[in-house]
Amino acid sequence: MREFLNRDFLLSTETAKTLYHGTAEQLPILDYHCHIPPREIAEDRKFDSITQVWLEADHYKWRLMRAAGVPEEQITGGASDWEKFRAFAWTMPQIIGNPIYHWSHLELQRGFGITAPLTPETAPAIYGEANEKLRDLSARQLMRRFAVKAVCTTDGPADDLRWHDAIAADGTLDIQVLPAFRPDQMVNLEKPGFAEGIRSLSAAAGRELRSAADVAEALSERIAYFDARGCLCADHGLDACMYVPAEEADASAAFRKAMTGASLTQAEANAYKTFLTVACAKEYAKRDWVMQIHFGCQRNVNRPAVARMGPDHGHDAVNSRSGAEYLAPLLNAFLENGGLPKLIVYSLNPSDNTAIDSILSCFQENGGKLRHGSAWWFNDSRPGMRAQLTSLACNGVLGRFVGMLTDSRSFLSYTRHEYFRRVLCELLGEWVESGQYPNSESYLRELVSSLCFRNTHDFFRFGV
Amino acid sequence: MREFLNRDFLLSTETAKTLYHGTAEQLPILDYHCHIPPREIAEDRKFDSITQVWLEADHYKWRLMRAAGVPEEQITGGASDWEKFRAFAWTMPQIIGNPIYHWSHLELQRGFGITAPLTPETAPAIYGEANEKLRDLSARQLMRRFAVKAVCTTDGPADDLRWHDAIAADGTLDIQVLPAFRPDQMVNLEKPGFAEGIRSLSAAAGRELRSAADVAEALSERIAYFDARGCLCADHGLDACMYVPAEEADASAAFRKAMTGASLTQAEANAYKTFLTVACAKEYAKRDWVMQIHFGCQRNVNRPAVARMGPDHGHDAVNSRSGAEYLAPLLNAFLENGGLPKLIVYSLNPSDNTAIDSILSCFQENGGKLRHGSAWWFNDSRPGMRAQLTSLACNGVLGRFVGMLTDSRSFLSYTRHEYFRRVLCELLGEWVESGQYPNSESYLRELVSSLCFRNTHDFFRFGV
Amino acid sequence: MREFLNRDFLLSTETAKTLYHGTAEQLPILDYHCHIPPREIAEDRKFDSITQVWLEADHYKWRLMRAAGVPEEQITGGASDWEKFRAFAWTMPQIIGNPIYHWSHLELQRGFGITAPLTPETAPAIYGEANEKLRDLSARQLMRRFAVKAVCTTDGPADDLRWHDAIAADGTLDIQVLPAFRPDQMVNLEKPGFAEGIRSLSAAAGRELRSAADVAEALSERIAYFDARGCLCADHGLDACMYVPAEEADASAAFRKAMTGASLTQAEANAYKTFLTVACAKEYAKRDWVMQIHFGCQRNVNRPAVARMGPDHGHDAVNSRSGAEYLAPLLNAFLENGGLPKLIVYSLNPSDNTAIDSILSCFQENGGKLRHGSAWWFNDSRPGMRAQLTSLACNGVLGRFVGMLTDSRSFLSYTRHEYFRRVLCELLGEWVESGQYPNSESYLRELVSSLCFRNTHDFFRFGV
Repeated sequence: MREFLNRDFLLSTETAKTLYHGTAEQLPILDYHCHIPPREIAEDRKFDSITQVWLEADHYKWRLMRAAGVPEEQITGGASDWEKFRAFAWTMPQIIGNPIYHWSHLELQRGFGITAPLTPETAPAIYGEANEKLRDLSARQLMRRFAVKAVCTTDGPADDLRWHDAIAADGTLDIQVLPAFRPDQMVNLEKPGFAEGIRSLSAAAGRELRSAADVAEALSERIAYFDARGCLCADHGLDACMYVPAEEADASAAFRKAMTGASLTQAEANAYKTFLTVACAKEYAKRDWVMQIHFGCQRNVNRPAVARMGPDHGHDAVNSRSGAEYLAPLLNAFLENGGLPKLIVYSLNPSDNTAIDSILSCFQENGGKLRHGSAWWFNDSRPGMRAQLTSLACNGVLGRFVGMLTDSRSFLSYTRHEYFRRVLCELLGEWVESGQYPNSESYLRELVSSLCFRNTHDFFRFGV
Repeated sequence: MREFLNRDFLLSTETAKTLYHGTAEQLPILDYHCHIPPREIAEDRKFDSITQVWLEADHYKWRLMRAAGVPEEQITGGASDWEKFRAFAWTMPQIIGNPIYHWSHLELQRGFGITAPLTPETAPAIYGEANEKLRDLSARQLMRRFAVKAVCTTDGPADDLRWHDAIAADGTLDIQVLPAFRPDQMVNLEKPGFAEGIRSLSAAAGRELRSAADVAEALSERIAYFDARGCLCADHGLDACMYVPAEEADASAAFRKAMTGASLTQAEANAYKTFLTVACAKEYAKRDWVMQIHFGCQRNVNRPAVARMGPDHGHDAVNSRSGAEYLAPLLNAFLENGGLPKLIVYSLNPSDNTAIDSILSCFQENGGKLRHGSAWWFNDSRPGMRAQLTSLACNGVLGRFVGMLTDSRSFLSYTRHEYFRRVLCELLGEWVESGQYPNSESYLRELVSSLCFRNTHDFFRFGV
Repeated sequence: MREFLNRDFLLSTETAKTLYHGTAEQLPILDYHCHIPPREIAEDRKFDSITQVWLEADHYKWRLMRAAGVPEEQITGGASDWEKFRAFAWTMPQIIGNPIYHWSHLELQRGFGITAPLTPETAPAIYGEANEKLRDLSARQLMRRFAVKAVCTTDGPADDLRWHDAIAADGTLDIQVLPAFRPDQMVNLEKPGFAEGIRSLSAAAGRELRSAADVAEALSERIAYFDARGCLCADHGLDACMYVPAEEADASAAFRKAMTGASLTQAEANAYKTFLTVACAKEYAKRDWVMQIHFGCQRNVNRPAVARMGPDHGHDAVNSRSGAEYLAPLLNAFLENGGLPKLIVYSLNPSDNTAIDSILSCFQENGGKLRHGSAWWFNDSRPGMRAQLTSLACNGVLGRFVGMLTDSRSFLSYTRHEYFRRVLCELLGEWVESGQYPNSESYLRELVSSLCFRNTHDFFRFGV
């Protein structure tokens, strides 16, 4: 029996251990997709308690606490930091098999040097020790502790990026902090915040937006604004992938209808969404950005809870109708309207893995610019990662994979990269030790370096 | 090499063996979902041959025999008990990897102390020995032998529950035998037996039913009738999960159309079904019952065979269009119309696992009343159970799972609980021995007890 | 650690090794589904370089090379044989985990006795050695080297089968080379080549085809023509399984519309496709042929690339809307219109596995004539095969499975049968060694022989 979460956590073979400890462990982190507020980096935020780092904004954990039966008061309510931490500690022993069980303990070990399993019994001591150590830790110090070399935050097109400017102006941070362009609010016109998003874009662009073409043009200007600040990538979140043959006139008709608050048919909405997504892709291709598209997520599905709490409180789920059948037509539309940008495609629905891998392989001309993205969010688990890696290996070129992201709002979540690297090295080790790949030190080292750092670095063009 | 189906069947690690033999094996069985006719318990049925227990009503086995090429005569036809048993024995060696291969041998071992593998060669001796032993075994004795403490049968709303009354009046049975409320025949108005179901409900309610509201009210009365007899749960089987915003007027229009025998659009049918399902959920919530919803099953798909043999003869299959995308809207409708009852959701389509787990986690407020149900029917296999347990662990709280059911018509099928417990202990053992969970005897025992007995007991409110 | 791809490749237990080396390895190959041009067998083609055997027609490999970033010039373009081989060698180390990595090395070992892993460094030597050995190898010699006893090619209904006649007339080949009937071009009327297909059928039939009934009749004549040349099976490829209740009049209306080049609704297209598929099934049943249906494939999804290169250049993908929900209705239509033929069903979408297995089990009357086909194309990998075998074992009778096919255009691809046999023996070994099946030499040998040879032989009625 191996000890709980020791040095060789998730690594069962000698090859896996050698690949991890000999190569993966030393590589810096490029976190190209996260939700950290840049302000917290600019101001180098400090934390009064581990509750603030762990539970203040982490809807992944909130969901588990709710499912374990914790009252909302102790999750997002008025309970004290200690009460919330205690409630999470009470939840922990019940979530056996959940990645959050692993992540949380990796965070205690790497962030605070605490190795005891978190239980109701150990909670008081761990709370005290972690809070004590947090006195000497800030946002930037945590990032350095995890050897983070670059992060891309998530930013709306209308954002003036002042906090990114502040970080750049400050000049003391040895970590690249870049914005990422996320135009969802101006693309997903069937969603509540659409009109507001268009108004904010209109304000940023300094003129009225009367058509889909106007929106596309304003977005193009904002892309230039982001580009001037070093932005390397964009991120499109779609409940479901979609495609309809869309003329500007159809898209503009849908746009105007949506702006009046009228409800649209799905075909109308998709005409606008297709038009805008294609228009954005063209801009990204022009600037050599990486476009990310992730689909297969139903958002805000618990209506009463969202009405009470707002979005991003743990009420999103996998979408069974992920629209993967529209991915190939959408990529054709990219190809036929300005060219394919570098592209990472993710579905939150793990049943789409084989379809995505086989579709992307149909469009890998001119150097191979498409990537199947990491298992994340609902799939950011050992089984989820293994499924994504295995599918990609079977129907694509694993050696070109661009690796892991955190998708997190917390400065402790970089352990998700460690988790991924361990899962990856274990899988490679299995293949080598069972005679499925030669035990070639140089090729294996090269693979691990590529999948944990180098491919991301080169694909995104990080300047580190 | 481990011996065939020995004491440590499916248990490969020391932890798994300790968890199973030290805890799981001793726990009594609460079988909250089965199809045993209560009359057989009331009358304490005896059996002339193992064919009667094994092959008389088990359409799982019939399908395999047909697929192996056995003529129908020897499956459901006029062949003798011995001929049918022999045909099943001939099928057995070919079904390697099938759970029925495992279940059947567990049943031979636990029910009759027979350890030889069933083959054409061993069939005569096994048939003789099992029949001999059956002389001293009755329905009740078999239930006691498997340490069954409670079962919920499956009963139509119009049922007078006389056999349940008889069992209660008898007073000699130390096993709780409760009805479960299954209103499918009055909900699924697109199915052949609908009008007949409504007439039987009308007779039970003692008045005419002219609208969807009338049906809902009559069902509410029958729920009260069942409740007075100790019923703790209901069970809704849907070919596909569905939701349409449904006013009573729409539901009643569909109802009246269906009663005339006219065919309905899917939207019309779903309006009625949504209305009735929501109305039932409200009643269950009021009485603190557990509602079960299972979807993703196409029934009676072989038309000519069903025309010859009737339903429940092995002609049901997984539904690729399981309607999982309507689960969240349906749960919203529950929330907004009387509240969520305690709820267990199952899909027969294993591709829905992640979606279900992630959706239920969005609705776990107020103490966490939703559960992802066991892998059963087409998924009641080692791989199927592992997939369900892993998905639940990754996107929910495994420690709150309510465990296994038989879904069976046979008094020997309680070995499916043993099978589940072995799969569960093996999985927990893997996690512990690979360092993914601490080797804490107390927490692990607690988990095993919860998942095999305690959670079911508390969630359903069994009085044992 | 096991050596790379040694004698016990993919075989980790003693049982697996015994089953493979003691039984599976010796069995001849029946390749009932391939795309080898019969002309190459008739003319006993020789090859100037390994590039011709490996890369000339293998769109599986082309896709990987594109995804690895190889320029098209070195894939399907004008580069020299050596340059193409070198580009493939450069790709190889990056495709860890891909079945093509395994197949290619098996082909080097079995075809040429070369055991070194293919890398940029070893490429020149391997290229030289393989080409040297190819001087003494021809198409027929390669087939003999792999103990091939029978192959079914893929042939259009209008084909005069002259190359098959030539092979038969020649009389020197000890391998059964049979045509397989593939009427896709006359069934899939929504596709570009439809009208041309109908004209070729019309020419072969020697009369005009004015209705769906005319097409069905002409196909029936061609089936007789193929039957007279020993054909045993047909193959229907559908992007998605479909069913609509189809009268001849509807089918003919759709037919006439398609022939004018007008575009059809999906319902119109499906009326014709259902009618023709049902009509063909009836003919196959009459002649005791095996019908194959595979669905779940989007073809030619990259429009610009297909416009440049034509079909079968690596631009097909898994279809997320595979239409598995129409399989049961389609089988009903077969049953009610002339009877079920012997049938093998495959979906390219692995999410359909459980649905297919459970549906086929509903139609296994009269001797059990339905089979869930092998994992192939996008699923022809160790994980894909394990998933298909496990699903089939759990919801069907594994002992009746008809085993592997190559689906290949290359005379080296018979190693895919070896790959399958190793995966199968490993899986059986796992079950036996973990106590899930008795360690019975006779039953296990029988299973392996059945799944690797005997079942295929008997199901198809090969005369070898």
